[in-house]
Amino acid sequence: MLPFRILIIGCCSAKPTLRHNPSAQVVNVHDRLFLVDCGEGTQRELIRRGVPMGRIKRIFISHLHGDHFYGLPGLLNTLALSDIQGEVHIHAFPELQDMLTPMLGYHKRSDGLNIVFHPHSAAGYETVFEDNAVSVTTLPLLHGVPCVGYVFHEKRSLPHIRPDVAARIGLPTSAMRAVKEGRGWTSPDGTQYPHEMLVTPSHEPRTYAYITDTRPLPELAAHIRGAGLLYHEATYASDCIEKALKYCHSTAAEAAEFAREAQVGKLLIGHYSDRYADETPLLQEARTIFPHTDAAQEGMVVEVP
Amino acid sequence: MLPFRILIIGCCSAKPTLRHNPSAQVVNVHDRLFLVDCGEGTQRELIRRGVPMGRIKRIFISHLHGDHFYGLPGLLNTLALSDIQGEVHIHAFPELQDMLTPMLGYHKRSDGLNIVFHPHSAAGYETVFEDNAVSVTTLPLLHGVPCVGYVFHEKRSLPHIRPDVAARIGLPTSAMRAVKEGRGWTSPDGTQYPHEMLVTPSHEPRTYAYITDTRPLPELAAHIRGAGLLYHEATYASDCIEKALKYCHSTAAEAAEFAREAQVGKLLIGHYSDRYADETPLLQEARTIFPHTDAAQEGMVVEVP
Repeated sequence: MLPFRILIIGCCSAKPTLRHNPSAQVVNVHDRLFLVDCGEGTQRELIRRGVPMGRIKRIFISHLHGDHFYGLPGLLNTLALSDIQGEVHIHAFPELQDMLTPMLGYHKRSDGLNIVFHPHSAAGYETVFEDNAVSVTTLPLLHGVPCVGYVFHEKRSLPHIRPDVAARIGLPTSAMRAVKEGRGWTSPDGTQYPHEMLVTPSHEPRTYAYITDTRPLPELAAHIRGAGLLYHEATYASDCIEKALKYCHSTAAEAAEFAREAQVGKLLIGHYSDRYADETPLLQEARTIFPHTDAAQEGMVVEVP
Repeated sequence: MLPFRILIIGCCSAKPTLRHNPSAQVVNVHDRLFLVDCGEGTQRELIRRGVPMGRIKRIFISHLHGDHFYGLPGLLNTLALSDIQGEVHIHAFPELQDMLTPMLGYHKRSDGLNIVFHPHSAAGYETVFEDNAVSVTTLPLLHGVPCVGYVFHEKRSLPHIRPDVAARIGLPTSAMRAVKEGRGWTSPDGTQYPHEMLVTPSHEPRTYAYITDTRPLPELAAHIRGAGLLYHEATYASDCIEKALKYCHSTAAEAAEFAREAQVGKLLIGHYSDRYADETPLLQEARTIFPHTDAAQEGMVVEVP
């Protein structure tokens, strides 16, 4: 099966700590690398995790709090200094372009790097990117500033040719593409083989949802129902519900209740407040409600089930 | 003697590596903490080195290449989020304010933090800050963009009261301030004690010069002659002189020749290109010319002699 997995680059909240980096993730869909959020220091963590920076061609920024995008100028500068060619696409609120533009272009060595901004709205439910492998759709979140989540929907792959059948009937390689796309095949002696006999269906498409920073929003559950993997912020434990309400964040229990409501395969909590020297209490709180929960840590690779 | 020392936060050049952070230093003059340059990730390294961020009230930015200031938005945001009160002063080229302003204020929790910009020119030889302990003067450098160095001149302290003499003649505490400031003292029985008899002179004022990024500029030597400590960039070894010329940097040999010309007490080289997995060749090259050389490393504390 083609890869669909995420790599945690950073999972702390506004104030960085020595244990955690600010928000950033690499989402690998069929070996296309997407960066979701880009807190300060992301470029260096990409080096540490062995991610080839030049292969990141598309970046999504959930909102314009510094811990989600202050690493972007440095990353883009390093790409330019490294003579990376082609386009890097940035999906974000339109204000990001106004913020970044004055900071860029001042250090550029490469004329071959073209940064393309794709502004999106805070209304959500907008498919902001789509290719033959994946679509990326925004979700409207509830935070102190405009903020969106992202849902990565894998597209259904073409079915697989059955190698046993192909060998037995002598299906030529040249005919395989048409068969995968839905046709049957007629052999030189006139025997007709229907499409269904020649293929096995591809796997069910997988879904990954990235939801941070926000108060829990039960109405979103229907939009990601059955997602294999959900990353949901859990900035606080329940004893800090007042802070969660004040700063528009979620508790671990609220993240878990949302995961249960959305019937996801697995919950990954993150965006930890710097008050926690150890996230075990957050993880325990969430698992009580939704057992299939893990706590994000830098360097963790999670397959989308 | 009151402290005058620097702490290396970062000493790599444009592209960060896993071994080095981009440029930043904390200069401690009599327990006032100044930050000189602020590359990406500086705030986290300050935490790592135990520097209380809230005590940094004045920041100097040599030039507007990203590796010298991309850590500033994050640092300022964290100060605001930490409810640090009062003023933080930033000395830099005027364009910095235009770059930073759109990125700030969006995440502020504290209304008590006031960021004050002090634009300086690229012409150099401008005393951009002065208090009763230190003055900071710019030096014009030669780089691809406008760039200045900084010279920290400690001011001469008041002389010290001689405790043996004070005890013998019964000099009251209430008279000591005037004596330190230059007066003599007349005892109740009419005996006159001249100033010179009552004090020992304070130590010679110390000087620290910070020079990066630049081609070597021998004409600056006269302006920092006899400085106790010089930090001078040494991006390359001499075999990369073509790159040094092309990108307006210095080689280790050139830094050492400059240090010799300026008759400084000690040279600290830094701003290493990412091509060096080990700076020993740079250090050896410099020491051949100027033996009192050390190679900057993150976390290193260097006293200004």
